[in-house]
Amino acid sequence: MTHPLRLGIAGLGTVGVGVIKIVQEHEKLLSQRAGRKIMVTAISARSRSKDRGVDLSGMAWEDDPVTLARRDDVDVFIELMGGENGPAKASVEAALAAGKHVVTANKALLAHHGQALAELAEANGVNLRFEAAVAGGIPVIKALTEGLAANRITGVMGVMNGTCNYILTRMEKSHLAYEEIFEEANALGYLEADPQLDVGGIDAGHKLALLSAIAFGSQVDFEGVEIQGIDHIELADIEAAQDMGYRIKLLGVAKMTEAGLVQTMHPSLVPMDSPLAQLEGGTNMVVIEGDAIGQLVMRGAGAGEGPTASAVMGDVMDIARGMLIPVFGQPAKSLRNVTAVQTERETAFYIRLSLRDQPGVLSRVSAELANAGISIDRMRQQSHDETDAAPVLIVTHMTKPATVELALKGIAKTGLTMSTPVAMRIEAV
Amino acid sequence: MTHPLRLGIAGLGTVGVGVIKIVQEHEKLLSQRAGRKIMVTAISARSRSKDRGVDLSGMAWEDDPVTLARRDDVDVFIELMGGENGPAKASVEAALAAGKHVVTANKALLAHHGQALAELAEANGVNLRFEAAVAGGIPVIKALTEGLAANRITGVMGVMNGTCNYILTRMEKSHLAYEEIFEEANALGYLEADPQLDVGGIDAGHKLALLSAIAFGSQVDFEGVEIQGIDHIELADIEAAQDMGYRIKLLGVAKMTEAGLVQTMHPSLVPMDSPLAQLEGGTNMVVIEGDAIGQLVMRGAGAGEGPTASAVMGDVMDIARGMLIPVFGQPAKSLRNVTAVQTERETAFYIRLSLRDQPGVLSRVSAELANAGISIDRMRQQSHDETDAAPVLIVTHMTKPATVELALKGIAKTGLTMSTPVAMRIEAV
Repeated sequence: MTHPLRLGIAGLGTVGVGVIKIVQEHEKLLSQRAGRKIMVTAISARSRSKDRGVDLSGMAWEDDPVTLARRDDVDVFIELMGGENGPAKASVEAALAAGKHVVTANKALLAHHGQALAELAEANGVNLRFEAAVAGGIPVIKALTEGLAANRITGVMGVMNGTCNYILTRMEKSHLAYEEIFEEANALGYLEADPQLDVGGIDAGHKLALLSAIAFGSQVDFEGVEIQGIDHIELADIEAAQDMGYRIKLLGVAKMTEAGLVQTMHPSLVPMDSPLAQLEGGTNMVVIEGDAIGQLVMRGAGAGEGPTASAVMGDVMDIARGMLIPVFGQPAKSLRNVTAVQTERETAFYIRLSLRDQPGVLSRVSAELANAGISIDRMRQQSHDETDAAPVLIVTHMTKPATVELALKGIAKTGLTMSTPVAMRIEAV
Repeated sequence: MTHPLRLGIAGLGTVGVGVIKIVQEHEKLLSQRAGRKIMVTAISARSRSKDRGVDLSGMAWEDDPVTLARRDDVDVFIELMGGENGPAKASVEAALAAGKHVVTANKALLAHHGQALAELAEANGVNLRFEAAVAGGIPVIKALTEGLAANRITGVMGVMNGTCNYILTRMEKSHLAYEEIFEEANALGYLEADPQLDVGGIDAGHKLALLSAIAFGSQVDFEGVEIQGIDHIELADIEAAQDMGYRIKLLGVAKMTEAGLVQTMHPSLVPMDSPLAQLEGGTNMVVIEGDAIGQLVMRGAGAGEGPTASAVMGDVMDIARGMLIPVFGQPAKSLRNVTAVQTERETAFYIRLSLRDQPGVLSRVSAELANAGISIDRMRQQSHDETDAAPVLIVTHMTKPATVELALKGIAKTGLTMSTPVAMRIEAV
């Protein structure tokens, strides 16, 4: 048995405490599986005095995470502070430069600085691992980087923000508006300090950018992710989708096409019988498509103390066992700089119009769609007793978003629409 | 870049050819990701002259796989011949003894000789990896051994035989009897040479035994798996299950209890809205439960050239990257010899009786169930125009199989049953 693996943890929130609990409660199990003892030697957090419900005696305290990252008695620096810059970035850089392995759950940091940090890690011959940054407990980074390493990956899709999924699911079940369920989620503590990270789709976009880099051997390109949040989703759309046999999910899609890399994080309709449609609350799902494996679906808890700590410790166990793998699955210097072309991908679209209730409107709308080159798969006019606006639902055949936009402009010009049309992609997963 | 990793492949069936295709078609991709070239240097199969549709020039041929396993120009021996003894066992032993890593898709070999082979591999400081042996392309061995390495695993469940799943799905859809669909599957080439390996549940039992060993740190105990095949499943049960909101799947369940290790591979009822119920055809699913992660569900192709070759090559890539992990996730010598206690686990049960159509039979049956200590969740008598046998369906509350057996004996003694009662577990996954 080799010498113990010594962990330094910066950030003692839910996940940090979860990691300490696992190390303490599973001491024997971990050492049997890793072939060496695993211990926490040093910690750092904002408040030293706070009672966190775990025994921190015997662990050195550092006020400054950068100092922690450089300590001689730390082999692996675990960054759980969060934030794309500031102490998180400074301490991760310090650790890598000092030749320490780094494990982090920080998707924002890697989405913005992944390339530079990966180059730094590889130049220093250490691991920079981030299983916990994407889809919580689901070992999807491992599956993509290692298990499917012999596949040319053709697509990655996923529902990767539990808060958005919770809100959308609750809206459907309760028939309450977005604003009310948002307040409910807020009261339950489900939202980040800046809620836009969640409901604006940014957090999920960070995750998608990391998966893309591994999947396609491309440099992390978060700026290239086309993001739409769920904050404009109306109950009417959730109900209309349901009526047509779909559910709305905040769905990330990454595909490499001949033109370049497609990365979208959009509220999208998925068929009711798709595995994605059946996700509830905080559960995440990632679907990977590879040329040899076909389709792999992974589902699990996307957040929370246990699942996220499980992912952090999975990375720690790999390091304890001596694994050394390029950060994004191939040397960072070999990752390609690719063109973002998200708007080129064709899918079916869902369109909801609110039209003046007068003769001939449907034929005018159909004509505008045909003019733009969109063919209609299904069209449904809903009953409308109370207002004189007639809700019309349309499912198109395969088309590009620019074409849909063109058609909607044409429809707007007719003066028949009573409110802004809604259009969302329909993804066939 | 270190020297190339040289593969020797014994067995050039579908999977062997799939592995060669990946190595040839993804040469650049693999070397970028592994940091070294991967090449096939030597091969062995039954027939040298057969055209397999791949270019085998430049690969040395060996008639004897044992000789292949010992060749100086082979770093990794890939065993794809199958069979629990014979050349497969001899050549794997030879390779390990000669200090070669071994990758195999052979569940029978490992289910019967896993402990001895793991000890041999570890004594020689080499890997013995078998991702392809369980659930085809799904990287479930990796998830369990590595990704979830910090979890105490509490349960593993899965549908892991595509042929059985195909037959059960087809019976439900076509309303044809087992025998007819069995012939259909046979004609499609879905069955092993010895069909009992598939429909008898043996193949799936092998897989479950391997997952258990990793999950619970126990020695592989295939003898301890209680196996029932699907060959006695009647269409009446598939239809009755559907009528009650369930589907029948050949489901493996492994759980560590205080009394010992539960391992069952039984046709079981799962709720229609469970992810397991929605599996069709050759798709496999494994559900892992751990104390930190909660539940992880993985779904993918359970067989076929691409998916299985993907799993073999995933193992090869790990070896190319220098990973060295104990065969079952902790040193083989530390694996415990545990007691098999499959009959102790309580679940709900489905019971189908065919009763004489005369007054008072339902109350007699209810009394016998109550006498045995079984409480009834639901009971349903189906309409029965054509015979004088009344089909009665029962869903029990939680109970043990021995209790169900006792009750069925009591019911048989009443002389009211027209045919042998059927009882199956209902699993709430």
